[in-house]
Amino acid sequence: MKKTLGVRELAFPAPAFVVGTYDGAGMPNGITLAWCGIVSSGPASIGISVRPGRYSYKSLMERRAFTVNFAPEKYLAEMDYFGMVSGGDVNKFEKTGLTAVRGDVVDAPYIKEFPVNIECEVTHTLDLGAHTLFIGEVRDVKADEEILDASGRVDAGSAGILTFDMTSGSYLLPGALAGKAFGAGAKYK
Amino acid sequence: MKKTLGVRELAFPAPAFVVGTYDGAGMPNGITLAWCGIVSSGPASIGISVRPGRYSYKSLMERRAFTVNFAPEKYLAEMDYFGMVSGGDVNKFEKTGLTAVRGDVVDAPYIKEFPVNIECEVTHTLDLGAHTLFIGEVRDVKADEEILDASGRVDAGSAGILTFDMTSGSYLLPGALAGKAFGAGAKYK
Repeated sequence: MKKTLGVRELAFPAPAFVVGTYDGAGMPNGITLAWCGIVSSGPASIGISVRPGRYSYKSLMERRAFTVNFAPEKYLAEMDYFGMVSGGDVNKFEKTGLTAVRGDVVDAPYIKEFPVNIECEVTHTLDLGAHTLFIGEVRDVKADEEILDASGRVDAGSAGILTFDMTSGSYLLPGALAGKAFGAGAKYK
Repeated sequence: MKKTLGVRELAFPAPAFVVGTYDGAGMPNGITLAWCGIVSSGPASIGISVRPGRYSYKSLMERRAFTVNFAPEKYLAEMDYFGMVSGGDVNKFEKTGLTAVRGDVVDAPYIKEFPVNIECEVTHTLDLGAHTLFIGEVRDVKADEEILDASGRVDAGSAGILTFDMTSGSYLLPGALAGKAFGAGAKYK
């Protein structure tokens, strides 16, 4: 039996992206976001939604660049902290001891200790009310060599990249394999 | 040591949303998408990216409505199939035996057998090259009563909603709890 829950935000899974920016004074900052994901394959683009009141909003508007950084369980506390406080009040890199490295391609810092870092240049902004959607074209992807498989690719599951579960308000480890895509569905063809 | 992988689509996690639409003749259709997620909290809105060549694209443009349906492992094969073939060639609901139910609020069908169904009305479209991003305002969320917890909320992890892992080309079960959000980060405050 279906029950109507009304209008609410509900999706699963959601990412936990730590988004790096420089502010007007050149201070590195990061913010943990969950309203994010890939939005196009060509040019490869990532969408991130940010409330206009957040400190990162102004940096994104001014610098038109950001990085996306993925965290494994080892950095859960740091990632969580980046979502709890404002870059207007504190330098989160100093507080956590994480290292901000200037992007090779874009005007934004990435987090050295996090195993995957993506540099993006803002191509579109779209005001959606509570949040503004920033579309970033991917300009470079970097990963720690230790997490690359034999063919040189990131396997996010093996790397232990965390997921945000908004329905339980928690971070989850990658789950077990349920099935290969473009596999089980063939039985209906 | 960081290694540059160049420009590529990489994110983790990604959802596996089966998006329901009616075509011009009123035939229900569904397409499995991974470039999706929440894009705003107010009005609550979901973004889905669709290639202009896909059969669902025309339906989305004409009807300006869609549903999002989440699948647990039990429906992995059906979900996979919805991403493998075109609604221009086949009625996927007939083939799989799944039931298309007319939305209560919007002009799109939802999948009765899937435990969570979200009705959305298209408010914006944004051409991003290979994909067009459709923003849908959430008009209603429905869930099977069996998957609601004591407080009437969906816990997606307990419900076994699948994740798409684009880095390994597979569907994953929800992972184990790594930590509560707004928890571990407090140690840096």
